[in-house]
Amino acid sequence: MTLRSILLAPSKLLQRRGIQNLYRQYASGHREIPALTKERYPIKRGKFSEVSDGDIARFESILGGKNRVLTATEEIQGYNIDYLGSVRGFSRVVLKPKSTEEVSEILKYCNERKLAVCPQGGNTGLVGGSVPVFDEIVISLQLMDKIEKIDEYSGILVCQAGCVLETLEQKANEKGLVMPIDLGAKGSCHVGGNLSTNAGGLRLVRYGNLHGSVLGVEAVTAEGRVLDLMSNFKKDNTGYHLKHLFIGSEGTLGIITRLSIFCPTASKSINVAFLGLDSYESVKNTFLAAKRNLGEILSSCEMIDALSLESSTYHFNLQSPIEKYPFYMLIETSGSNIAHDEEKLTNFLESTMEKGLVLDGTVTNEPTKMRNIWKLRELIADSLINDGYCFKYDISLPLDNFYDIVLAVRDRVGPLATKVTGYGHIGDSNLHLNVSCPKYGSEIHKLLEPFVYEYTSNVRGSVSAEHGIGFLKTKYLKYSKRPESLLLMTQLKGLMDPNGILNPYKVLPQV
Amino acid sequence: MTLRSILLAPSKLLQRRGIQNLYRQYASGHREIPALTKERYPIKRGKFSEVSDGDIARFESILGGKNRVLTATEEIQGYNIDYLGSVRGFSRVVLKPKSTEEVSEILKYCNERKLAVCPQGGNTGLVGGSVPVFDEIVISLQLMDKIEKIDEYSGILVCQAGCVLETLEQKANEKGLVMPIDLGAKGSCHVGGNLSTNAGGLRLVRYGNLHGSVLGVEAVTAEGRVLDLMSNFKKDNTGYHLKHLFIGSEGTLGIITRLSIFCPTASKSINVAFLGLDSYESVKNTFLAAKRNLGEILSSCEMIDALSLESSTYHFNLQSPIEKYPFYMLIETSGSNIAHDEEKLTNFLESTMEKGLVLDGTVTNEPTKMRNIWKLRELIADSLINDGYCFKYDISLPLDNFYDIVLAVRDRVGPLATKVTGYGHIGDSNLHLNVSCPKYGSEIHKLLEPFVYEYTSNVRGSVSAEHGIGFLKTKYLKYSKRPESLLLMTQLKGLMDPNGILNPYKVLPQV
Repeated sequence: MTLRSILLAPSKLLQRRGIQNLYRQYASGHREIPALTKERYPIKRGKFSEVSDGDIARFESILGGKNRVLTATEEIQGYNIDYLGSVRGFSRVVLKPKSTEEVSEILKYCNERKLAVCPQGGNTGLVGGSVPVFDEIVISLQLMDKIEKIDEYSGILVCQAGCVLETLEQKANEKGLVMPIDLGAKGSCHVGGNLSTNAGGLRLVRYGNLHGSVLGVEAVTAEGRVLDLMSNFKKDNTGYHLKHLFIGSEGTLGIITRLSIFCPTASKSINVAFLGLDSYESVKNTFLAAKRNLGEILSSCEMIDALSLESSTYHFNLQSPIEKYPFYMLIETSGSNIAHDEEKLTNFLESTMEKGLVLDGTVTNEPTKMRNIWKLRELIADSLINDGYCFKYDISLPLDNFYDIVLAVRDRVGPLATKVTGYGHIGDSNLHLNVSCPKYGSEIHKLLEPFVYEYTSNVRGSVSAEHGIGFLKTKYLKYSKRPESLLLMTQLKGLMDPNGILNPYKVLPQV
Repeated sequence: MTLRSILLAPSKLLQRRGIQNLYRQYASGHREIPALTKERYPIKRGKFSEVSDGDIARFESILGGKNRVLTATEEIQGYNIDYLGSVRGFSRVVLKPKSTEEVSEILKYCNERKLAVCPQGGNTGLVGGSVPVFDEIVISLQLMDKIEKIDEYSGILVCQAGCVLETLEQKANEKGLVMPIDLGAKGSCHVGGNLSTNAGGLRLVRYGNLHGSVLGVEAVTAEGRVLDLMSNFKKDNTGYHLKHLFIGSEGTLGIITRLSIFCPTASKSINVAFLGLDSYESVKNTFLAAKRNLGEILSSCEMIDALSLESSTYHFNLQSPIEKYPFYMLIETSGSNIAHDEEKLTNFLESTMEKGLVLDGTVTNEPTKMRNIWKLRELIADSLINDGYCFKYDISLPLDNFYDIVLAVRDRVGPLATKVTGYGHIGDSNLHLNVSCPKYGSEIHKLLEPFVYEYTSNVRGSVSAEHGIGFLKTKYLKYSKRPESLLLMTQLKGLMDPNGILNPYKVLPQV
C-alpha cells in the first residue's frame, strides 16, 4: 500500500455495501430487494430472443462447468441489482468466462441467437449501466483477474480486465509504481470497468485521464471478433487509435478483456493542507496559486463549502482542524523529496495568507492527521444521505461559473431542501452538487430537473463528469451532445453491434 | 518564450527548409522539383472526378475571392511537395477557408461531386501524408489561425486548427502556461496537424500524449457535417468519446477545424545533465534511477550511442562536455523551485556515479551550456544525412530489447553502411534507428526492409512511433496492426467517408 492509499478514508457506504457483502445480503434475504427496473421506468424490451435451456447447455459446454454458469435465483440476485439498489433486472443466467476465447465464443453464439448481454465488472457504477434492464445475460469478468506483467522500467502493467483496482495498486506498489487511477470503490471495482466507464477519480489532476494512460486494449466485439489493440508503448502511431472506442463507451461497443496501462512512479512524500477561505473567488485564486507554487507536486485540489463540511462533521462526529469559514480547500501534494515538498507547501501557505486569499490553514504529513482531514471531504456524500433523501449531480462547469449553480439552486428550491451544497474537484472543474431533504418529493424533483441540466448545458458544462450515462442518464445526454454527435454514436453502434445485443438500453438515447 | 523553448536547438534542416521559404524556392525555380509520386510509386488514381473550371468558380463563390482559391502553378507548387521533397502531387487548386462553415460547404460540394481532397496544415509531416498523391484538392488551414481563449485558471486553450504551434506556445507562456506538446517543426506546424497525426515530441515523457491533453475537437466530416465535440473539461463522460477518432487518423475521417487543449503550468527552473555510460544496461538502470529520484521534475530522458554523438560533433563541429563513452544520456528536469531541482539532480548524479552506473557527467542550468548540450542530441538526425544517404526508422521497442536491433542491423548490413546508430527518447521507449551510407543503394535497402519491420513486429514493437503512416508507410501497417483491426479501420472509413474523398491513398493499406 502506498501512503496515499492508506490515507483515503473508505466511504462508509462502501464499507457497509462492499459488493460481495451485498450479494450475500440479497441471497440470504437480509436486504430488501428493490423494484424491477421495467416496473419503475417506462421502457420496452428490445426484440431479443429469450434464454432457453438449450442456450444454458451450450454455455455450459463453452465454459465447461456449472460453477461458471450460474442460474439459481439466490446466486444471481446480486448480479441483477446495482450497487445503489436503484435498478434491478431479471437475468436468469450469469456467465463467468476465464479467457478472451471464451468471451468470444459466448458473444458469437449470443449474436447468432440474438440474445442480449450485459457485461459486468465490479458492479460499482452509479448510473445503472452494469446490471441488466430486462433479462439480458450477465457476462461477469470476475474470473478474468490475471496480472500478466508489471515492468518497473517502462512502468507498464498488463492484465486481464477483471482485476480489482486495489489488487493492481498493491502489486504496482511492490515495483515502486502507482496506478494512474484511484477511486472510492477501488476494493470492488474492476479495472476493465474503469476503462469502460472512463472512470475519473482522485488522481486525475496529477496523472491525467485514462485516454492518456491506457496504452492498449483487447476487446471482443458483439460478433465475437477479438480486436487485439494491445500496445506497450506511449508512442504508437500506426493507423486509427481504435482503443479509444472502448474507453468510455460503457460496454456498448465491445467487451474489454485485457489491457495495458502506464503506471507512474510512486511518491515518497505526501502532505495535506486544509484551508479556510471567505469566498469562491478566493478559492479560485488559491487554486491558481497552488498550480503555480506547488506545480509538479500538486496531487489533489478540492473545494468544500460551509454546509458540506457541516454535514460531514455533524453526521460522522468529526472535528475540523480549523475554525468555521464560508469555504474550505483540501490540498494534497505528493513528491519525491519530503523536505522539498514541505518547504514548497509552507511557502505557498504563507504567501496566500499574506495576500489575504487564505484566512486560516493547517499543514500536516502525519498519517493520522492527514487521514482525518481526508475524511472531512470523503464522507460528505454519505453524510448528506443522512438528512433523509439526497439528489446528487456530478457535473463539470467552467471555473468562472463554478459555484453559481449552488446559489441558483438554493434560491430555486428554498425551504423544500434541507441543504443545497457544493463540493468537489475544483482542480478538474468537477462539482458535486447535492440537494438533501427529509424525504423524496416530486415537487422538489421537478424544480431540480431538468433545471440543473439546462443550467449546465447553457454554460456548456458536462451533465456527467465522472459517472457516465449508463441506463439512468440516457435522457439527459442531449444536454451535452449535439444531434450530429448522437447520430454518429448511433451509426458506430450499428456498425460494431448490428444486432444491438451489447448492453442494450444504455448510453444511447432510447427511441 | 519559456526557458525550455529557447533551449531547443532548431534543426538545421528545418532552418534551411522553413516551410514558407521552401515554397518560395520552388516558386522561383531555386530549388529542384522532385519527381511526381505517381511516377515513383506503383499506385492507381481512384475513381474521383477531375476539377473543372465550374468547380473553381464554385469554390470562389464559397470563399469569396481569388486570393483564397489558388490555381497558378507557381503559387501552388509548394503545397504539392512534402517537406522532405520525397513525394509530389499535381493538384491544380489550393483552397484557403477561414471558418468551419466554409470547410463544411467545400466538403459538402466535393462529396457530391466526388472530388478528392487533401487537408493540409503546416506541411511538415515526414510520411507524405500532407500533400496530394494525384490531383486532390488541397484544403489549407493556414488562414484558420484564430486563438479564441486561453484561461489561466483552468489552463484551457481554445483555437482554430491552423494556429502555428510556436505562436500558441508564446501566447500560453504569457499566461504562465505551456503547450503540452513541443517538437522541432514548431515554427511551421499547425496544431490541427499535430492532432491529426497525434504528434509526440519532446514533452511527452512529462505531459503525456494528445489523447490525454486534448479536451475537445470540432471536425467536419467528408459529407460536410460539423461535429461539435468541443469540451472545456477534463472530465466529461457523456457518451462515446468521439474526438479520439480524429486524433491520429491523419485527416482521413474528417478535417479538424477547432480544438480545446489543456496547458500545464510553466516551469520556473530547468536543468540539463549529460552523462557518459559504458553499456545499454547501465542506460536502462539510470533511466529507472532518474524516474525514482527525479520523479515529478523529470522532463526529458534521452539516450545517444557513441556513433550518434560522433556524427553530430563531427559534422557540426560541436564539443561534447565529457570524454568519450559507449553511451550517453541527456536528462532534463523542469520544476517550480530552482534550489530543489538542483539538489535533486545533484543527488541523483552522485548516487548513480557511486553505484558505477554513470561513469562521468556534468550538470548545468546556464542557458548557453544547456543549449549546447541539447544541440548534441538534436543535430544527430541532420548530421547523419551528411554521410551521403540515410535510412531512418522511428520505432517503439520494449526496453529489454531496445538497443539489440541496432546491433542486429549493424551485423546484417556490415560494410555497406557508413554508420548504424541508435538514439532517441528512452523515456518513451522510442528509438530512432539510422543507417547512413555514401549513397542510396537497393542492396542495403533490401537488407533493411522488411527486416527492420519484421524485427520490430516480432518483439511486438511499433513500426511508427511518432511519425504516422501517411502515404509512405501504408504497406508496413500490417506489421503493427492485426487483420481484425485493419478491417475495423476500413469499416470506419466507409462509415464516415462513404465516397472516400478525404485524403485518399493515406493510412489505410492500398488494395
